Amino acid sequence: MDIELLLDILGNETRREILQMLTERRCYVSQLSEELNIGQKAIISHLEIMEKAGLLEPHFEKVEKGRPRKYFHVSQNLVMEVNLFSKLFDVKLHSPCMDEDVLEEFPRIKGLYRELRSVALGERDIAELEEIREELLRERERLTEARKAVDFLLTQLSGSLGEERIDQSLKKAFR
Amino acid sequence: MDIELLLDILGNETRREILQMLTERRCYVSQLSEELNIGQKAIISHLEIMEKAGLLEPHFEKVEKGRPRKYFHVSQNLVMEVNLFSKLFDVKLHSPCMDEDVLEEFPRIKGLYRELRSVALGERDIAELEEIREELLRERERLTEARKAVDFLLTQLSGSLGEERIDQSLKKAFR
Repeated sequence: MDIELLLDILGNETRREILQMLTERRCYVSQLSEELNIGQKAIISHLEIMEKAGLLEPHFEKVEKGRPRKYFHVSQNLVMEVNLFSKLFDVKLHSPCMDEDVLEEFPRIKGLYRELRSVALGERDIAELEEIREELLRERERLTEARKAVDFLLTQLSGSLGEERIDQSLKKAFR
Repeated sequence: MDIELLLDILGNETRREILQMLTERRCYVSQLSEELNIGQKAIISHLEIMEKAGLLEPHFEKVEKGRPRKYFHVSQNLVMEVNLFSKLFDVKLHSPCMDEDVLEEFPRIKGLYRELRSVALGERDIAELEEIREELLRERERLTEARKAVDFLLTQLSGSLGEERIDQSLKKAFR
């Protein structure tokens, strides 16, 4: 997945609306066209761009009468992160993945991983999955807060580096 | 800061290039125009859009002869996060901030916070700032890896929720 291309795609409101709809449910062209009130030709062109970029995939489903219907769904799992600070601009793409070290360094994640495995192995009831999911979402939120704190410390720091006198903002932050 | 507007702005390659240049050093219009090989009128129009959105600010610096020169710099500290999963599309804006709870829950961040405070209070040498900065960047990386692991577990889960039989991919993930 090309970052520049992804930014170009996300810069278009209609394409964002299409992605929104397709993550809520699979749709075919005329559904998108009607709901977004945009001509089918334009919808098809947006879908083609996103399919070519690897964000979407089509699949066919049988209908009672007539030809199979062509649906689209989002075929990516990705997190794009844009960092814009006074002295840094970068864009990164992350794909979900499991680094073994993480399990050792973050006991809560290890705990959730184990619970999930127990369910997968049939040792625990599948009804617990919803609870595990909520716990994972909370953990995600905690990690986001932790990153915001690290970013806060980094922004306090960036004015001070290389200066003889500590930046006023740094002093103020620790008053 | 409006998320839709930010996505629109970042969807334009020239504006991304301008942001890149301005985070590396402050620039005035003709510098941007020359380096990016784009007419001054177009540059001015991009700068206006980004200034109006609150991403940029101008400031004036005296020059030996003639009128003060108008420079631009990035006036925001923000992280934008785009989550695109098969069943979720959302975009979030984070501003760096320090939540007190984070310090209690993440001992490493607390340690770095304390070191930074010691320097700010003059108890430790300013030369240590560079080391603290590198440690903060490593911590940021660790937290990013942890989030990727949580996302991995969430993606494994999403196929299984609400289904009687555990999804094959979940079983595969824990083989």
